[in-house]
Amino acid sequence: MFKKTLDSVVTYEAGKPIELVMREYGIKQEDVIKLGSNENPYGTSPKVIETLQKNAHKAFLYPDDSMYELKNALASRFCVNPKEIIIGAGSDQVIEFCLQAIDHTRAAVLMAKTTFAMYEVYSKLADVEIHKTRSDAHNLDEFLESYENVKNGASRTSITSHSNKECANRVSIIFLCVPNNPLGECLDSQAIEDFICKVDKDTLIVLDGAYQEFASYKDKAKALNPASLIKKFDNVIYLGTFSKVYGLGGMRIGYGIASERIISMLYKVRPPFNVSTLSLQAALVALEDRAFTEQCIQSNIEQMLRYEEFAKHNNIDFIPSFGNFITFSREDIESTHLCQWLLQRGVIVRNLRSYGLNAFRITIGTPAQNARVFELLQEYLQTRG
Amino acid sequence: MFKKTLDSVVTYEAGKPIELVMREYGIKQEDVIKLGSNENPYGTSPKVIETLQKNAHKAFLYPDDSMYELKNALASRFCVNPKEIIIGAGSDQVIEFCLQAIDHTRAAVLMAKTTFAMYEVYSKLADVEIHKTRSDAHNLDEFLESYENVKNGASRTSITSHSNKECANRVSIIFLCVPNNPLGECLDSQAIEDFICKVDKDTLIVLDGAYQEFASYKDKAKALNPASLIKKFDNVIYLGTFSKVYGLGGMRIGYGIASERIISMLYKVRPPFNVSTLSLQAALVALEDRAFTEQCIQSNIEQMLRYEEFAKHNNIDFIPSFGNFITFSREDIESTHLCQWLLQRGVIVRNLRSYGLNAFRITIGTPAQNARVFELLQEYLQTRG
Repeated sequence: MFKKTLDSVVTYEAGKPIELVMREYGIKQEDVIKLGSNENPYGTSPKVIETLQKNAHKAFLYPDDSMYELKNALASRFCVNPKEIIIGAGSDQVIEFCLQAIDHTRAAVLMAKTTFAMYEVYSKLADVEIHKTRSDAHNLDEFLESYENVKNGASRTSITSHSNKECANRVSIIFLCVPNNPLGECLDSQAIEDFICKVDKDTLIVLDGAYQEFASYKDKAKALNPASLIKKFDNVIYLGTFSKVYGLGGMRIGYGIASERIISMLYKVRPPFNVSTLSLQAALVALEDRAFTEQCIQSNIEQMLRYEEFAKHNNIDFIPSFGNFITFSREDIESTHLCQWLLQRGVIVRNLRSYGLNAFRITIGTPAQNARVFELLQEYLQTRG
Repeated sequence: MFKKTLDSVVTYEAGKPIELVMREYGIKQEDVIKLGSNENPYGTSPKVIETLQKNAHKAFLYPDDSMYELKNALASRFCVNPKEIIIGAGSDQVIEFCLQAIDHTRAAVLMAKTTFAMYEVYSKLADVEIHKTRSDAHNLDEFLESYENVKNGASRTSITSHSNKECANRVSIIFLCVPNNPLGECLDSQAIEDFICKVDKDTLIVLDGAYQEFASYKDKAKALNPASLIKKFDNVIYLGTFSKVYGLGGMRIGYGIASERIISMLYKVRPPFNVSTLSLQAALVALEDRAFTEQCIQSNIEQMLRYEEFAKHNNIDFIPSFGNFITFSREDIESTHLCQWLLQRGVIVRNLRSYGLNAFRITIGTPAQNARVFELLQEYLQTRG
């Protein structure tokens, strides 16, 4: 009855929700510190909460499927045309649209070895050959090397067998996560443009800017300009999300910006009413509440320094992060054990074992949350050391 | 760059939202009567509105992806195991999961000629051969005939060419919409069971119960029992939604009930976090507010009688409807013209021209909304008559 290719698909296990920690460890809701999913530790902006409350009675109405208001607001923010925008149930869904729309005949997708898990999840569902670079972090030379290898049939980096008999002889999508989740490193925008020039025009370049607000604030050289990029390149799509600095992870809303040609094709695979009525309202207000987002970004930068200091002080390895999270590793710390130990104490961080790494990713929290994390990590290191 | 099969996909045009009518005709929000999308005319239950308001501050948190609470509540309501339930962003998404998961090699899907548009939308996206019965309304003899014809290679009812060279020699999915949107007729549950017995076990039968709450209240013979059905048949999935009587069309939440085997396969194609945090909370409360839903169903039955009387009085054709809507047609009424005329007066109903019918579907509204509809229809008939 079902597709045979599904046999090899493993159902995705999401990060642990607060409710589960409460249920499994009998910890009170107010005592749980959730730093496992890179949500905004300051929550949702008070203005957005007010909007949600005011519009709650509209829950019975199907959303305006043209998404007129939000597309116009985004268009004005990014200096693009509304027709160059598609809204998804999270930017994840725009990734899914790309994989559903692209012609995969004898094609592969290419991504960094350790990057956002959804690229692989949706690629497997689309039954497309997946290639990854050797290095964990983004290395554009390696991307180019893999890219050429696929074209020349010389690739040995394919990591999934797929049902099509014939091997890929071209790359249909390249995923660049800028900055990269879960590692934190960030490519320079100039380097990205130089890279795109070296790639064939029928390869779609997905520039995932889920954490761009943090990176561009920290370092101008990391700032991507979607309007300029899509003007220069008709094979680029920029992804943004309301799940991170905008504090709307639970509302499932993100967007893609690309040429009208690309957007119109992605629209063909979009299910109608893919975003909720309240999500559209919330995103509109979140986008305009710049005071809130700026405050969150500034706190993130200040608190990130505390994590870096803590790491240096405790001989913990980390890559300087351009996101709202930091990934720690130390050879003698078994990440699965540590994450479980923290969980029992009500602190949720992300174990990176599922990425094949003995490391753990912590969302930068509020000052009080971070103090608790340092306290517990200290205790753990002393007990185990 | 894109799949060639997308060329023939037409981007779905949703029903007109209130915002558009306000923008295009300069009509005030409070003067718009939206009876075009089968939403609950009584809106969202006050208890659900309160829940949404109380939980608005949780918008920054990713949803509990296990959907523990809602699955348990649904399991208890329907006397099934939580593992026999999958939650979708509307029951539409569960339809999409079915089409993505099912093996379509040399397979077709089968549906009534005039039925819920999403079956065809998602079938086209899955690039599967689509067969429809001759009659507009559901006729199980014709379903069986088409089913056998596909198996015997004798079918001439295929309505879409698709990219696979070889013709289908089996039916992978049969869609039964019970009651049927947009026509309103409803199959008896016993007739459905008899039909399923005649179909091969590797054909998935989708029983779409989006309007079952209305049908089963009106006539016990129409009531589907998901628990008993999935116990008897391992090739059946029952679909339910929170978009209709539960008043949550804007929250995008519905569900599928089937054997654990089927649900586990659909889970493989489900994107993580496919339903918003607030949608899960809202659905939980909506499900328990039986006083509200019963009141809505009773009003629907009373008001439906007014529409039937109006139709008889004005020589308008209709099929007795088991949903929360009624479809009208009269030879001398041009539905596109009428719908446009109503729209200019702030009343949104659904023109069925896109279904190939000179007919229009009206959601049964509140007594005041319906009075306004009758008033306008009367005016239209007098002016044109």
